Amino acid sequence: MKSCVVLFSGGIDSTTALYWALAGYAKVFALTFDYGQRHSVEVRMARRLTRKLGLPHAVLKVDLTQVGGSALTDAAIPVPKHRDLGELKAGIPLTYVPFRNGILLALAAAWAEARGVTDLVCGFNIVDSPNYPDTRREFVRAMEKAINSGTKAAFGAPPIRVRAPFIELEKSEIIRKGLALGADYSYSVSCYSGGEAPCGACSSCLLRKKAWREAGLEDPLITRLRKEGNP
Amino acid sequence: MKSCVVLFSGGIDSTTALYWALAGYAKVFALTFDYGQRHSVEVRMARRLTRKLGLPHAVLKVDLTQVGGSALTDAAIPVPKHRDLGELKAGIPLTYVPFRNGILLALAAAWAEARGVTDLVCGFNIVDSPNYPDTRREFVRAMEKAINSGTKAAFGAPPIRVRAPFIELEKSEIIRKGLALGADYSYSVSCYSGGEAPCGACSSCLLRKKAWREAGLEDPLITRLRKEGNP
Repeated sequence: MKSCVVLFSGGIDSTTALYWALAGYAKVFALTFDYGQRHSVEVRMARRLTRKLGLPHAVLKVDLTQVGGSALTDAAIPVPKHRDLGELKAGIPLTYVPFRNGILLALAAAWAEARGVTDLVCGFNIVDSPNYPDTRREFVRAMEKAINSGTKAAFGAPPIRVRAPFIELEKSEIIRKGLALGADYSYSVSCYSGGEAPCGACSSCLLRKKAWREAGLEDPLITRLRKEGNP
Repeated sequence: MKSCVVLFSGGIDSTTALYWALAGYAKVFALTFDYGQRHSVEVRMARRLTRKLGLPHAVLKVDLTQVGGSALTDAAIPVPKHRDLGELKAGIPLTYVPFRNGILLALAAAWAEARGVTDLVCGFNIVDSPNYPDTRREFVRAMEKAINSGTKAAFGAPPIRVRAPFIELEKSEIIRKGLALGADYSYSVSCYSGGEAPCGACSSCLLRKKAWREAGLEDPLITRLRKEGNP
């Protein structure tokens, strides 16, 4: 009876990670972070999906506006808008949240340890890795090692695993994998700007649009919003 | 003009770390975590010292009662009381807070990164390492590596250093070092039970008592409390 914790932000990647985990684990806990993100609508949308799936879901609060230094956690730094993907550059964007995934993985590891769960599942992928250092394979491995040297695992308890099954995948490949697993993306929010409807101009919206185009399908979020009479 | 962030809980070890940092850095930021600890009096006492020293001091909130699993963060788990140090065993005690120092170092790294500070200073020592995996040299090294692979440092920014100058020292040696640096321990609180006056029976009180006995001095906290008419 193996169990796992999925770091579930409510976006495309972690929604797919949730379905991937449901296919391979007897018990799946969804864990979402309400970290003071501008787009906290994702927390509400994440809850909708787990309610629909009948999954246990914890939302942990950790206020990263205390840290600041990012367009996602400091209201004074606007989210950059772009005309197209050609405007996105390699390197660290303003939407990088300092060591966010280190903080969230550390909290997830603690939450899992306190409940006797050993596996953590994340939706990290190749699309984010040129811009966000805390999504890369090297980071995942280093963080796993830090967790195992700073928890009961260091004293003989079963090791904690940080699994990132999509770390070599493009977003369109993740979508295909998710659809094959029956994933419902109609409530998954990616936009950084804070609304349920995509702004269409932040880097996250542009990457999501590209992924659905490459998958040859309409984004189910757009389909739902249109049906509901939204733009 | 080198600067650093000291993880300053207000106990003996991190108070010494603060004075150690003041002797070696041009600019020292104290960082304290209000994490839902039973002994949150330490936060108030920590503030007293930095006010006296005129140091910049940030207190970050991160509610680890959401994680639980420890006598320090779950009111339903009592702090174990002991007659003497002989009762303390190797292995993980109920006062271990799941991956606490992983979480706090991750937050400190983020806070430092957002402010362009590269050095983090901690008071980890040899007294805690048999019981708390997240105070050992191996953990510090692994965490430093995780931080450097998940922050701007991974993309070419100056590396972040996690310094633990007392990691091979006994508490009495730390005290001697601190006193040589002029450290004021009269407001430093170690007791897990939650009061300003030591309960005298938790593991932290027993270890502190032993350290002052070994140093051949009266604990300045006790001296102050007696002068103020406390027990």
